[in-house]
Parts: sequence; C-alpha cells; structure tokens
Amino acid sequence: MEEVLFATGNRHKLEELGRVLRECGLVPRTVDVAKLEVQSDDIGVVAAYAAVHAYSVLGRPVLVEDAGLFVNALGGFPGPYSSYVYKTIGLNGLLKLLEGVRERTAVFRSALAYAGPWGVVVFKGEVRGRIAEEPRGSAGFGFDPVFIPEGVERTFAEMSTEEKNRISHRARAARKFCDWLRGGRKPL
Amino acid sequence: MEEVLFATGNRHKLEELGRVLRECGLVPRTVDVAKLEVQSDDIGVVAAYAAVHAYSVLGRPVLVEDAGLFVNALGGFPGPYSSYVYKTIGLNGLLKLLEGVRERTAVFRSALAYAGPWGVVVFKGEVRGRIAEEPRGSAGFGFDPVFIPEGVERTFAEMSTEEKNRISHRARAARKFCDWLRGGRKPL
Repeated sequence: MEEVLFATGNRHKLEELGRVLRECGLVPRTVDVAKLEVQSDDIGVVAAYAAVHAYSVLGRPVLVEDAGLFVNALGGFPGPYSSYVYKTIGLNGLLKLLEGVRERTAVFRSALAYAGPWGVVVFKGEVRGRIAEEPRGSAGFGFDPVFIPEGVERTFAEMSTEEKNRISHRARAARKFCDWLRGGRKPL
Repeated sequence: MEEVLFATGNRHKLEELGRVLRECGLVPRTVDVAKLEVQSDDIGVVAAYAAVHAYSVLGRPVLVEDAGLFVNALGGFPGPYSSYVYKTIGLNGLLKLLEGVRERTAVFRSALAYAGPWGVVVFKGEVRGRIAEEPRGSAGFGFDPVFIPEGVERTFAEMSTEEKNRISHRARAARKFCDWLRGGRKPL
C-alpha cells in the first residue's frame, strides 16, 4: 500500500477520504503543517495554494482538501468560508438567513490539490442538494446536518460514512485523484 | 510631497486614506497588482501577507489595507470576510441575522501593512459602535450604512469623508502609519 501525505487536522475529512483512498490501494497519513489559506471564490485556488505551500515546507508530495457549501439563494454564501461561517454564526445563522426562502438549492464542493515536484494538480467533486428546514442527524461535521443531497430524504449527518461516501463531493474528488494516480498519468 | 504606492482597487479606500496621508505630506498612488489574500481571523495577518506579496511583485515599497466589521453577537462575523459577505448576503443578510437581537455592538477594524526591503510593518485602527436597525445613508461603501459609531447617532454612510475620517478605523490606522513614517523610525 502506497502512503499519501494528507495535510489536515480534521478527523472527519481523514475518515471520509481514507476510505476512498484505501479502496485504490493508498494509505493517507496526516501531517501537521502550518496552513496557508488564500481568499478566493474558487476553492480549487484555495486548495492549490495550500498544497504548494505545504509541499514547500515538507519537501514531500502532499494532498490538501478544501470544501465549501454554496447556497444558491445566498449568492454562493458561505462558499470558501464555510468553516469560518460555521464557527461564527453556525447552523442556526444559515437557517435564519433562509427563513421564508423557498429556493433552498445548494451545492457542496470539494477540491483536492496534490502538490509535488510536478507543481500542483487539482481534482474537484460536487453534490447538488438543498438546505433542510432544521438540523437533523449527528454524523459528519460542519453543515452536514442541514444538507440534503438530491435523490435522498436524509441529511449528510443522518448517513454513515459509507453512505455519504457513495455520493459526497469529497469522495467524488478523491475518486478522480485515485484514477489519475492509478492511471499512470502522474506528471513525474 | 513623498509618493506612497497603495495597492487597492477600491476608490473609497483611496479617498479616505488619501486625505489622511496628504495631511502628513504623502501622496498615495494606486497600483494594480494581483492580490494574495490569505484566510485568517486576524486582518493584520491578511494585510501583511498581501503587502509582502505585492512588494515581491512590484519591487518597490507598497501599502495594503485590509478591513472588517466584527459583530460581537455573531462571534465576530463577518470579520475578515466582510467584503465577500457584503457581496453575497449583503446588508439585508446581516440585518436578518440580527433580527430580534438586542446586543448589536460591533467594531470596525483596519490594518495597514507597509512592505519593503525591511520586511513588513502593520498599523491597526478600530472604532466601536453598533449595528443599526436598518440601512441609512449613501456615502462610503460596504457595511457603512448599518454601522453607527459610538457617540454619534448617524451611520458612516450618513457622514462626509471628512467626518468619517475624524473617527474611522481606517483613518486611525493611517495616522499611526504617518507618525511612524514621519517619526524617523523607518526601519531602513
């Protein structure tokens, strides 16, 4: 099993990503490295900068993930700042912003950036859905309790990691990364 | 009059800062340079990174400003992401988050970073106040129509630039920068 360095302090991300990577013969090992997060409407740019920075510090190829929840009726908010918005106004703040709003569609997006001597490559995944009327479930993390993916009646927080991984933005990005790595198209 | 490069695309910031700088014999000249904005709860860190980056591109000393509105009842939100939040959920979104909330105190903060061969120095200014019940006034920019500084009954958007500059976070930071530059404590 080949080891892949993954710069994160989020155990939920590690668990979700780890399952997908192990399916393709990779083992993620987390590394603790000072994080450089730039501001950008594009989480691919955020992840790419962070990965290049982590690689410059570690001197070894490293994977970084950035994700965000983009609510259509709110112009894409909270988007790249989902983690900050979750920490400050939380689930209740998001639901308050949507009080009386019927158009509740949203997209969860993930961008995985893998930096090394080749530069950096980015893989994106997304899942469409809608914002629930109230939080449900206790699995997952962040805005999971208010996100209902298309074609399902449960929130991400009401699913096991296995179920969530079948459709999640993060798992989709991770599978693209695996395909690329396994496809022999490693740019080295 | 000594020229100071100021990396901004915001004409309001230029006007406010320009008045203070001219009072101390400096003339700001705007430069268009790709902006690197990192994510941080501390706008001083955001400004410092951006200034170092701009200096690395321009090869000449350059001033960068970052500012944010920190609402106490919202855990400091929108803080460093005020510009993004203004573009997405806007004044109405912020007011909606504060519906029924009586504790409406807030702080407007500014950080001016000046990068050059000495590295980067940061000057901070702030003004305390509260969030209005509804937007008032059309001067200024961003969250100015909902911010009422302490000791006044008008919002920033109901003031002339001259009035706003007497008390604003940005003018306070700019005066510290002038004092430092004029005090002969330039680290060169």
